[in-house]
Amino acid sequence: MPVCLWNHALIPTCLVEPGKHHESATYLPRGILVPLFRRHFQFTYTVSQQQQRNMDEAAPPSKKAAKKAEAKARKEALKAQRAEARQAPSSAVELDDPAKGFYGQAPTAPIVFQGKTIILRAWLQTSRTQSAKMAFVELREEGNWTIQGVVTATSEPPEQESPIVSRPMVRWIAGINPESFVVVEAEVQRPIEPVKRCRVSNFELRITRCYLLAPAPAILGTTLATANRPVVDLNDEAIGAKAGVREEEETDKEGPPAASMLVHLDNIAMRKRAPVQQAIADIRMEMKHLFRSYLKARGFKEFEPPSLIGAASEGGSNFFRMPYFSQEAFLAQSPQFYKQFEIAGGRKRVFSIAPVFRAENSNTPRHMTEFTGLDLEMEIRKDYSEVLYLLEGVLLYIFRQVHRIFKDEIELVRSVYPSSEILLPEPGQEVRLMFTQAQQLLREEGPAEFRHVRDDEDMSTPQEKALGALVRQKFNTDFYVVDKFPETARPFYAKLDDTAAAGSAEGAVKVTNAFDMFLRGQEILSGGQRINHPDELEARIRAKGIDPASPGIDGYVQVFRQVGVPPHGGGGIGLDRIVAWYLGLPSVHLAAYYPRTPRRLLP
Amino acid sequence: MPVCLWNHALIPTCLVEPGKHHESATYLPRGILVPLFRRHFQFTYTVSQQQQRNMDEAAPPSKKAAKKAEAKARKEALKAQRAEARQAPSSAVELDDPAKGFYGQAPTAPIVFQGKTIILRAWLQTSRTQSAKMAFVELREEGNWTIQGVVTATSEPPEQESPIVSRPMVRWIAGINPESFVVVEAEVQRPIEPVKRCRVSNFELRITRCYLLAPAPAILGTTLATANRPVVDLNDEAIGAKAGVREEEETDKEGPPAASMLVHLDNIAMRKRAPVQQAIADIRMEMKHLFRSYLKARGFKEFEPPSLIGAASEGGSNFFRMPYFSQEAFLAQSPQFYKQFEIAGGRKRVFSIAPVFRAENSNTPRHMTEFTGLDLEMEIRKDYSEVLYLLEGVLLYIFRQVHRIFKDEIELVRSVYPSSEILLPEPGQEVRLMFTQAQQLLREEGPAEFRHVRDDEDMSTPQEKALGALVRQKFNTDFYVVDKFPETARPFYAKLDDTAAAGSAEGAVKVTNAFDMFLRGQEILSGGQRINHPDELEARIRAKGIDPASPGIDGYVQVFRQVGVPPHGGGGIGLDRIVAWYLGLPSVHLAAYYPRTPRRLLP
Repeated sequence: MPVCLWNHALIPTCLVEPGKHHESATYLPRGILVPLFRRHFQFTYTVSQQQQRNMDEAAPPSKKAAKKAEAKARKEALKAQRAEARQAPSSAVELDDPAKGFYGQAPTAPIVFQGKTIILRAWLQTSRTQSAKMAFVELREEGNWTIQGVVTATSEPPEQESPIVSRPMVRWIAGINPESFVVVEAEVQRPIEPVKRCRVSNFELRITRCYLLAPAPAILGTTLATANRPVVDLNDEAIGAKAGVREEEETDKEGPPAASMLVHLDNIAMRKRAPVQQAIADIRMEMKHLFRSYLKARGFKEFEPPSLIGAASEGGSNFFRMPYFSQEAFLAQSPQFYKQFEIAGGRKRVFSIAPVFRAENSNTPRHMTEFTGLDLEMEIRKDYSEVLYLLEGVLLYIFRQVHRIFKDEIELVRSVYPSSEILLPEPGQEVRLMFTQAQQLLREEGPAEFRHVRDDEDMSTPQEKALGALVRQKFNTDFYVVDKFPETARPFYAKLDDTAAAGSAEGAVKVTNAFDMFLRGQEILSGGQRINHPDELEARIRAKGIDPASPGIDGYVQVFRQVGVPPHGGGGIGLDRIVAWYLGLPSVHLAAYYPRTPRRLLP
Repeated sequence: MPVCLWNHALIPTCLVEPGKHHESATYLPRGILVPLFRRHFQFTYTVSQQQQRNMDEAAPPSKKAAKKAEAKARKEALKAQRAEARQAPSSAVELDDPAKGFYGQAPTAPIVFQGKTIILRAWLQTSRTQSAKMAFVELREEGNWTIQGVVTATSEPPEQESPIVSRPMVRWIAGINPESFVVVEAEVQRPIEPVKRCRVSNFELRITRCYLLAPAPAILGTTLATANRPVVDLNDEAIGAKAGVREEEETDKEGPPAASMLVHLDNIAMRKRAPVQQAIADIRMEMKHLFRSYLKARGFKEFEPPSLIGAASEGGSNFFRMPYFSQEAFLAQSPQFYKQFEIAGGRKRVFSIAPVFRAENSNTPRHMTEFTGLDLEMEIRKDYSEVLYLLEGVLLYIFRQVHRIFKDEIELVRSVYPSSEILLPEPGQEVRLMFTQAQQLLREEGPAEFRHVRDDEDMSTPQEKALGALVRQKFNTDFYVVDKFPETARPFYAKLDDTAAAGSAEGAVKVTNAFDMFLRGQEILSGGQRINHPDELEARIRAKGIDPASPGIDGYVQVFRQVGVPPHGGGGIGLDRIVAWYLGLPSVHLAAYYPRTPRRLLP
């Protein structure tokens, strides 16, 4: 029996691309076309902002009437095209066509493409019939990448060597439903004039063969153009509304119709195909990656906290609970205890990236029931400012790197969701306010309703936003720290600032070595020093009105009694929030892959 | 108001280390000692296997009696020491001691260390009084790293410049409870003879100052030596047993006592401090990292599937369910549907790393209720073998890299959990068996009870193990693929092998383009091609006896009707399993950070 038993069983069922090994070592995200372009033509394409807007179909507010007419015309054309497609189904290839075999449904037997032409597997985004002899298509690769394809019937009789393109083939290609997945053989050529509608504007593809790999339906639940518009209604009142029930309800005064979040989510595949969504997703994943790489370079070890826990340990009622065999289980609200267990367990610096859950019935743009937490915890060598500086450092690193890497993507997102350019502090110019200073600023220079905010009460969301505006105006930054929160605003594990208390007058506000960080006036991080002595911890738990012997708490305190735990601190970042507020999105729901809200669990 | 409002409020409450910036750019995992060593002495230390075993206290089976006596003596010494410690509490520093201020509880005012000596923040692992003038301690940094510290009372009167070490100071240091966290000032010197018990054997630290940062209790729930022994009983029958209730129950014939999983988990901090646990954790995290980096280099995009889902979508009853506001929520069993949604949503290659949940009441070494899934999905260009080769490639990459990076750690794990060296195929010599061939092998050359295994039935766990033994013997590898599983053994989304069915005889077994991958005879991966046409998918769902209109399924099928979805396939890897089986651990519970079983949710 030979060791390799595999090859004899290889019967290709789809398309063969000669010269392409099935597992190429460097598979570029944009497929094979870009590298081929680069090799043959040594070009780099650029897209002006204007071209991009055209492509996005989210047109700028100039020449409204013209745009409106254009949009209508496009819509009509699309409708007509679809109607035509229904009459002449894509599968109908004329039997006596000389181009037969160069187009149609993908056959089950292997196809061998010939010559030095290019093979592109892509989504057919739109198609347009120019004449009986000519049609145009827009082909989209992953991300924000489109190119025009042109198919022209060859003059008869065809030259010996040239590929045959027949009129039925032109008609067939023009009739492919938008968003179908196709494979085309084509030659790269210069268009007569730049193709403004496509991201690649200086080249086009002369299609010589075209096969349908996966047909889209004649009627789409929503169009790509709509999926690339801003979500007009974030309400998810109607639970599990089906596609089509509430369809493209609001029509903007210009451009393609915009849809509600319900329509977007009910058409999840189309939503995800929109370049703006892919840009947000790419930025999100890179933020995770930057968090991880920054910390790994500084000696942090990753660990995995559990999602299922045995007790609603941190107090509060916002826990999901479920039957768990003979007992009850809860979903973790944060990895707080587990981060500290890792420190108690002999790690000096740890971080985790994990889902966390909140059973809060909050239907706001800042809340989800499931989101991704970026968390870290570290030994403190001198004082807790080490933790503050590190967290400030990792956030600024993420923001600066994203700004550097994703210029195009940020521009694209801003063309759909307009926002001001984010202001970050120069290195060494970071803004760190004491909580009391922040409150004073609000009292003295904030809106009238905050004239009497107190130093011993937590900040409300409106207060935070007002503070953000003040800080931006005074210090020219959208990112800043508020430190030394009052103990009333912090959980039991927050370490009190002993030094301040010792030196302060009777009745002074007790503060903690704990801080929040803000972006555009919204909280994105909570952090600080934790209590590491069991007696001190137990006293604080009691002071907060919690029984130290209650389930979950007892095991937590016990860990500090079991072994000597070094001084430590850390913080937690909501990934969804830093994505949303960094990009100036109106809701964290827009930053998530599959947003979970009290009313929505699908898809 | 100045922009930086921070510095004036900095009142250090702990220790100051001059010359060390609080946020050093390159913080080495092993703290400051190793780099200092390297700089001053240009040495690299090596530890022989024998030395390591000594350090581990998991002694080899030679000279049993001597070892036993030694172990007993050590235990007695430790007890005596602890008794002494209780009589002379660590906090009692003699007031008229000339060394006063050089040792003791960490003061709240800043301490300034002087001179060119070394500062080490570490866990004091053991201590031993040699005489009234001399004591030894073992200091442990993160991971498997220990060094001997020696403290000797200075001759009186002391020389002018030299630091003062008094006899009370020696006694105080020797009385520190094991596993306390300390900071020491010391000078590096050569020991008289190599320190076999410590990982760093050719150097020791002459301690000049020592402060207690976090004291451990006099009596530990379990010792580090025990935490570094193999777990002797993986049963977790007693739910939530408290530390001490079932203490160190089984005593091996040699070395320190070994404990059950219950004792290990009830003493979570001590368990995590054991070098063997940190080695397993480091390997686990690197496996995740290697999975990610291999895929990113090949154009895969990460995404995040939800944990909370609205329907028990993949069928089966092993779902955790919970009240979710006005509806019901489930915990995801796999990211299968969501991976496919990403492909439908215009991504060509995606992967995810996320927790998955199974409400299976299976109390076996192979099962947990929560574990980490490494998943990927990709467009298929030619045929599904692209998916198979890629998954095989990523697994072999992980195994080979871990072998290269973690030689020491693997050796350490094997010294605690003995296993045979893993056999991997040479590149190009990968073993890929058809399912029918695997069954034939079992029938013809396997144990007698498998003489009649059938080609249309899934493999049982004992069958898999027997096959693993046969493959190892015949092909010299512990890693292999079994391909073309019968359709009865696969879920509805598995693509049937149309080509085989068309060419085969009446009544032949229907097979799928789906495969499993095995390590040491245990399944670690399931993968294959998925159905991408909605009608075909619906037919298979019906054929499996599931209603395509049932909750969750309807939305899934709908996605394929909404848009054209390219041919695709993928696979899922259980991270816990590849860690456990790669290292030859007896249970996946030993590979997890916080194992979740039907009876255990704590800590």
